[in-house]
Amino acid sequence: MSSNSFGQLFTVTTFGESHGPAIGCVVDGCPPGIALAVEDFEHDLARRATGKTRHTSARREADAVEILSGVFEGLTTGTPIALLIRNTDARSKDYGNIAQQFRPGHADYAYWQKYGIRDPRGGGRSSARETTMRVAAAVIAKKWLNDRFGVRVHGYLSQLGDIVPARFDSAAIDWDAVESNPFFWPDAAQVPELETYMDALRKSGDSVGARVTAVADGVPPGWGEPVYGKLDGDLAAAMMSINAVKGVEIGAGFASIPQKGSQHRDLMTPQGFASNHAGGVLGGISTGQQIVVSTAFKPTSSLRLPAEGLDTDGNTVEVITTGRHDPCVGIRATPICEAMLALVLMDQALRHRAQCGDVGTVTPRIPGRIDG
Amino acid sequence: MSSNSFGQLFTVTTFGESHGPAIGCVVDGCPPGIALAVEDFEHDLARRATGKTRHTSARREADAVEILSGVFEGLTTGTPIALLIRNTDARSKDYGNIAQQFRPGHADYAYWQKYGIRDPRGGGRSSARETTMRVAAAVIAKKWLNDRFGVRVHGYLSQLGDIVPARFDSAAIDWDAVESNPFFWPDAAQVPELETYMDALRKSGDSVGARVTAVADGVPPGWGEPVYGKLDGDLAAAMMSINAVKGVEIGAGFASIPQKGSQHRDLMTPQGFASNHAGGVLGGISTGQQIVVSTAFKPTSSLRLPAEGLDTDGNTVEVITTGRHDPCVGIRATPICEAMLALVLMDQALRHRAQCGDVGTVTPRIPGRIDG
Amino acid sequence: MSSNSFGQLFTVTTFGESHGPAIGCVVDGCPPGIALAVEDFEHDLARRATGKTRHTSARREADAVEILSGVFEGLTTGTPIALLIRNTDARSKDYGNIAQQFRPGHADYAYWQKYGIRDPRGGGRSSARETTMRVAAAVIAKKWLNDRFGVRVHGYLSQLGDIVPARFDSAAIDWDAVESNPFFWPDAAQVPELETYMDALRKSGDSVGARVTAVADGVPPGWGEPVYGKLDGDLAAAMMSINAVKGVEIGAGFASIPQKGSQHRDLMTPQGFASNHAGGVLGGISTGQQIVVSTAFKPTSSLRLPAEGLDTDGNTVEVITTGRHDPCVGIRATPICEAMLALVLMDQALRHRAQCGDVGTVTPRIPGRIDG
Amino acid sequence: MSSNSFGQLFTVTTFGESHGPAIGCVVDGCPPGIALAVEDFEHDLARRATGKTRHTSARREADAVEILSGVFEGLTTGTPIALLIRNTDARSKDYGNIAQQFRPGHADYAYWQKYGIRDPRGGGRSSARETTMRVAAAVIAKKWLNDRFGVRVHGYLSQLGDIVPARFDSAAIDWDAVESNPFFWPDAAQVPELETYMDALRKSGDSVGARVTAVADGVPPGWGEPVYGKLDGDLAAAMMSINAVKGVEIGAGFASIPQKGSQHRDLMTPQGFASNHAGGVLGGISTGQQIVVSTAFKPTSSLRLPAEGLDTDGNTVEVITTGRHDPCVGIRATPICEAMLALVLMDQALRHRAQCGDVGTVTPRIPGRIDG
Repeated sequence: MSSNSFGQLFTVTTFGESHGPAIGCVVDGCPPGIALAVEDFEHDLARRATGKTRHTSARREADAVEILSGVFEGLTTGTPIALLIRNTDARSKDYGNIAQQFRPGHADYAYWQKYGIRDPRGGGRSSARETTMRVAAAVIAKKWLNDRFGVRVHGYLSQLGDIVPARFDSAAIDWDAVESNPFFWPDAAQVPELETYMDALRKSGDSVGARVTAVADGVPPGWGEPVYGKLDGDLAAAMMSINAVKGVEIGAGFASIPQKGSQHRDLMTPQGFASNHAGGVLGGISTGQQIVVSTAFKPTSSLRLPAEGLDTDGNTVEVITTGRHDPCVGIRATPICEAMLALVLMDQALRHRAQCGDVGTVTPRIPGRIDG
Repeated sequence: MSSNSFGQLFTVTTFGESHGPAIGCVVDGCPPGIALAVEDFEHDLARRATGKTRHTSARREADAVEILSGVFEGLTTGTPIALLIRNTDARSKDYGNIAQQFRPGHADYAYWQKYGIRDPRGGGRSSARETTMRVAAAVIAKKWLNDRFGVRVHGYLSQLGDIVPARFDSAAIDWDAVESNPFFWPDAAQVPELETYMDALRKSGDSVGARVTAVADGVPPGWGEPVYGKLDGDLAAAMMSINAVKGVEIGAGFASIPQKGSQHRDLMTPQGFASNHAGGVLGGISTGQQIVVSTAFKPTSSLRLPAEGLDTDGNTVEVITTGRHDPCVGIRATPICEAMLALVLMDQALRHRAQCGDVGTVTPRIPGRIDG
Repeated sequence: MSSNSFGQLFTVTTFGESHGPAIGCVVDGCPPGIALAVEDFEHDLARRATGKTRHTSARREADAVEILSGVFEGLTTGTPIALLIRNTDARSKDYGNIAQQFRPGHADYAYWQKYGIRDPRGGGRSSARETTMRVAAAVIAKKWLNDRFGVRVHGYLSQLGDIVPARFDSAAIDWDAVESNPFFWPDAAQVPELETYMDALRKSGDSVGARVTAVADGVPPGWGEPVYGKLDGDLAAAMMSINAVKGVEIGAGFASIPQKGSQHRDLMTPQGFASNHAGGVLGGISTGQQIVVSTAFKPTSSLRLPAEGLDTDGNTVEVITTGRHDPCVGIRATPICEAMLALVLMDQALRHRAQCGDVGTVTPRIPGRIDG
Repeated sequence: MSSNSFGQLFTVTTFGESHGPAIGCVVDGCPPGIALAVEDFEHDLARRATGKTRHTSARREADAVEILSGVFEGLTTGTPIALLIRNTDARSKDYGNIAQQFRPGHADYAYWQKYGIRDPRGGGRSSARETTMRVAAAVIAKKWLNDRFGVRVHGYLSQLGDIVPARFDSAAIDWDAVESNPFFWPDAAQVPELETYMDALRKSGDSVGARVTAVADGVPPGWGEPVYGKLDGDLAAAMMSINAVKGVEIGAGFASIPQKGSQHRDLMTPQGFASNHAGGVLGGISTGQQIVVSTAFKPTSSLRLPAEGLDTDGNTVEVITTGRHDPCVGIRATPICEAMLALVLMDQALRHRAQCGDVGTVTPRIPGRIDG
C-alpha cells in the first residue's frame, strides 16, 4: 500500500508540495453513478481555506478543483477520479532563509534525515497544504454516505488553548451556530472572547494548540473490521496522519481511565443506548450510535519568535520563520477531521458490503435497530 | 490487506478465538538469519499472562508456543513463521448464560450486528486472548531491532484509575523497578497502595481504566513514511487496535493543546534535543529521540455487577458476567503496548530500508546524529 | 500485502514447509454463515493427494484438515479461518545428499541466493506441498460461489507431453469422464495410452510437462477490476504462482496471434455469444461467458537421471535426486488450477460487491443477461 | 490496494480516459536522489506513440509530460511523483455512433455490465491510451535499475500474425536493428515483408495479433518473493494487465510442455548456466540469468469490417468502427511490455532490499555469481 494512499477500497492517493506546480489526488474504488461536479467541492474547500479571516494564514488559496477523469456526463463511472488544484499563491521567497537550517519542531529535519534531500519551499510535502485534497476527496464520500445511508458528518472546535466551550450540549449541537463563526465554535456567545485571544496570540508571534471533535450521525451498526481493521483503529490512523496531531480519542477517550466500568458501560434499552461513552464503537465495530472522535493539535512550530536551531552542517543558528502561518492550525482543522472521518466511514462501508453484503441481507433476524 | 493482518512488510496475521481449539499467527516478511527458538517467547508471554497474581483474570494460560514453519536449524529462513498456542483452560460453560444476551459495553452486540452470528464463548474473536499472538510476534521484532540497531522497547503503567506515579523521572525510568511489581508501575513505593486499591476494586465487582506508556530508545532518525504511513499514524492504529483502548497520544499528546508553540517546540542543539514534547516524531518520521506513545484503556465491561441489557430478541434482561475477568485490563496491557510499538518499528524499519537503503547509504552528508 | 498471502478481500495466507511439522493457512474476509466442516475438504484434497496411483509421487499424504478458528457450530463467523494439516510422512533423510548442492532447474539455488539460508528438506517452502492449502482454502470459495451464484469450477488435463485429447468437445466436457481417471483426462478412450506413456517415463527416470485447463461456468458479467486488478490479470498471477508453471493463457491465448480480428472477435446475439475466443473476459471484466484459463507446467527438475550441478562452494558435482517425486507434476495440478480459479473469482466477487453492490442493484436497466 | 495501482513498494497509480481532459499517474515509493527531468520521458514515449508511421493509429499524441510533484532541483525527493499529459487530439465525434451499441470483442460491453455506465469516447478507461503512463513511470524505474544494478531492459516483436523472425539469435539480439524499424523486429531483412503485410492488412480493414518478448539483463539473483509474490507471478499479472493480452510465458513457456525434464533443466557450471529454458526465474526468484517474458496480443476488435453486435436495449445492430485504430496493437506494445518488466523489477528490487538488505549484505558466503 502506497504510503501516500489512504483507504483499502475507497482509496485516496494524494500528491503535491506546498509550493510546487499543483496538488492533487486520485480517488479509486468509487461507486459508479454518483452525481459529481466541480461546484460540489467549493463549500468544504472554502471552509478549510486560508486567507479568509485574520485568524488564519494570509496565504490566499483559490483552490479551484479540476476533475481530470472518472466522471462522464456528470456521473462517476467507477474509474479513478483525479482532482487537480494548481498552486497560485506560492511565494517561495518567503522560505529562502530556511533552506539550510532546521526550525525546531518542524518536519524539515526529519525529512532531511530520511531522504537526504528535501523541498524546503513552504514545508514541501509536509505542509498542511496536502490536506486540501483530503477535504476534496471526502466531498465524494460525504455525498455517498448521506445519499445512501443518511450518514451526516460534522465537526467543531472543542478546545482552543485552555478555553473550552462554556455552554453547549455535546449531544445536541447547533451546527448552524458552529458554521456561523470562523472558529467552528459551538458556543456562539464565546466568539468575541476567542477573537480577542487570537488577536493577542497573533500579535505575540506565538501559537497555541486546539482540540477538534468530529461526529457522524446515522452510521448503521456493523461497520468496522476486527482486529487490525477496526473502525476506531482506522480513525486513529486517519486523524494522526493530519499535520500537527498528537492525540486521538474515541468517545470518552482518556477520560475513561478514572471511570469505573459500571459508570463507563453504556446501558442498552429497547429504546436505544442510555449513554455514549463508547463513542459509537465496540470491539472496533459501529453500534449504531453517534461516532465521536476527538483530535489534539499541537501549537505550530513555525513562529516569528526566534529560536535556537541547527543548520545542515550541525551548527547552532537563530531561526525565525517569516512566512505566512496559522497561529492555531486547529482552527482550520475542523473540515479536515470531518474529511478523515468521512473517508474512514466510506471505506468501511464498502469493506462491510464486500464481506457481508448490502445492509439488510446479513442480519434479517435482528428485531430492530438499537439506536442511541 | 486482510483485516486480521498487521504491518505492510513485517506482516503479522493472527487467528483464533478465546475458547476455540487454538490461537496462532503467521509472521511474513521476516528477515532471514535471525536466531529463534521456542524459549525466546517465554519471557514476554509470561509477562502478559493471566492467572499469575490475584489482580488479573484467574484463567491460567500455559501459552506454550509451537513454531510450525519458517525456522530451520534455529534460524529464520525468510519464509512465513507460523506460531501456534493451544487453548488449554477454556471453560466455555462459564459463558453459557450470555449466548442470547448482550452485555453493556461489550463487543458481542457489535459482532452480532455485523455478522449476524457470533461465537459467544469468552468473547470469541473479540477477546483479549488474541493479543497473546501480538506479544509472540513482537518477540521476533524486538530481537531484530535490538540486534541490528540497538533499539530497546519498554513500557509501564502510567495511570491506574485516578492514581498516577508519585515519584519518577519519565526520562530515566528504572526498568528493573517496573518489572519487579505486577503492575509495571514505575514508582515501587506505591505498589502497596495499588494492591489495596485493586483488592477493594475486585471485591466490589467493578473495574477501572488505566494508561500505559510505551517507549523506544535507540530508534534511528528517518523511520516513518509521509503522509498516510506516518510512524505516529501507524502507532495510533496499532494501539487503538488493542482491546479496550479509547485513546492514543504521542509525546505531549492532549497536553499539547494548552501549550504555546514557543513552549512545545523542542529546541535542537549540537548536543541533541533539549526536550521531547514531540515524542520522537516530527512530520510522521522519527527524529532520533525516544519514541513515546501513551494509550488509554477503558474499564472492562465484563462485571459481576448486574446491569440492564438486551437479549437477541430485543427484550430487556439483567446481565451478570460470571466468568473470569480482569478488573483492570490495563495492568496486563503493558507488554501488549510494547509489542505493538515493536511491530510498528520493525515494519517501518523495513519500509525505510526498501525506499532509502540500509542506514548509512542515503544520508552520508549528515554531520552527526542529533540525539536527545 | 504479505507475499505469502493471496487475494485482496478473500485473503489466503499459507505457511509451512514440505518436511516441517505442519502446513496450514489462514482464510480472512470470508463471508459469515457458510456451513463448513472438516468433511468438506476431503474430496478435493484427495483429488490432489500423492500416493494414490503409481503415476504420482509415492509420498502418502493423509492431509487431515483441522479447523482451528472462524467456525462456530458449523457456520463461518466472519473471523479468520485457520486450517492446519500435520506433515506425517515427511522422510527428510531422502534429501540429505542435496543439502550442500543445487539441483539444476530447482528453486533451491534461487532461495539460497535470496536468503543466504534454505530448508533443503523436500524443497522446503518451494515444495508443491504448499498447494495443498490452496486447494483447502478454495473449498470454501467453491462452496460460496456455487451456493450464491451457481458458479461451477472444473478442470482437466489438456496436454501431457505431446499428447493432446483426441476426441472431446471443449464446450461440453463430460466431467464424470474427467473424474474417472487419474489423469483428469477428458477423452476416456486415451487413458490406456497415457498409462503406458507414464509407465515408460517413470521407468526412464525422466519427467515431462503438461497443460491444465480450468473453466468456470455461471460467472456473472461484471467481475474484475480495471486496470491492474483485471480478472485475467489476477488469474495470470494466480496460475503463475503455482509451482512449475511457465505460461498462462486466457481463452484462445497464444493461438490469438495468427488470428484476424474478424475471426477472433466473439459476435454477440440476443441469444448469447457466438464463440468464446475471449475466454469469458473483456477489458479485464467477466462477460457472462465461460471463464477459460490454461496453464503450462514444465517437466519437474527432480530426476533420478544424474546431472551436472554445483555445490554451495561453487564446485561442479553430479546431482541425483533420490526422493519421491512426480514424473509429471501437471497430472495432480488440475485441482490446484481449479483452486486458484475459484480463489480469484471469490475475491473478485467480493471486490465487485464492495464497489457496485450486490448483483442486481447496479445494473437494473440491462435488458437481459447475454450468456454464451 | 487500489485496482488502478501497480506495485507494492514502487507504486504506480494511473488515471484518465482516452478522450478526457488528461491522463496521468502518481509514482509513490520512489527512492530519493534520482535525477529526473521532463526530457527523460521523451524517448520511450515517442517509441510508444501513435501517429508516427502508417502502421499504427493515426491519432497524434504529443505526450508532453508535466512533472507536478516529487522532484526538487532536478532530483527525486522520495515523495510522490505526479506526471500529467493533457489529451490534445481526442476527436470524440468519431465515436458517437457506438455510444448505444457494443462492438464485438470490446471492453465496452463488460464495463457497462459492471458499472451500469461507461464513457464511450475512445473506449474511455479501457483504451490503450492508459499505457502511456506505464511507459512514463517505467522511465524512472529503468533509470534506477540501470544506475544502481546495471540492469538493462529491452523488447522486440517476436511474432506478427504468423510471421516469425527468420534469422536472429535470441541470446544475442542486435538492439540497434530492433530500434531501427517501426516494428521492433529483430531481423532487419524482413522489414519490407512486414510492411507489405501490414499495408494489405490495413487496406482490408482487419487486424491481427502479435507476440512481444521483453528481456532484462543484469538482474541480480534473489529478486522475487515466494509464494504469491513470485517474480514470474508479478510478471504474468503485469503483462496480462496490458490491453489485448491473452497469454504470458516465462522462458520456454508453453514449449516446456512436450519437453523432458532432462532437456528443460538448465545445467549449472562454474562458468554459469548452460541454457535458459527457465527464463531467469526458479521458484519465483531470479537466478542471475536473463529474464525472458513473452506476451500474446490478440487482434484488436475495433475494425472497419462490419459485424453483428448488440445495442444497449439488447437488439441486434450492425457495428462498424470508424475511429483511428491500430491494425496490430502488438506493434506499439514493445515499449509497454518493457515498461511492465521494468516496473516489476523495480518493485521486487525494493521488496528484496526491505527483507534482505542491500545486495551484498545477506549473502556474503556465495562464492561467485553464477551468470548465464
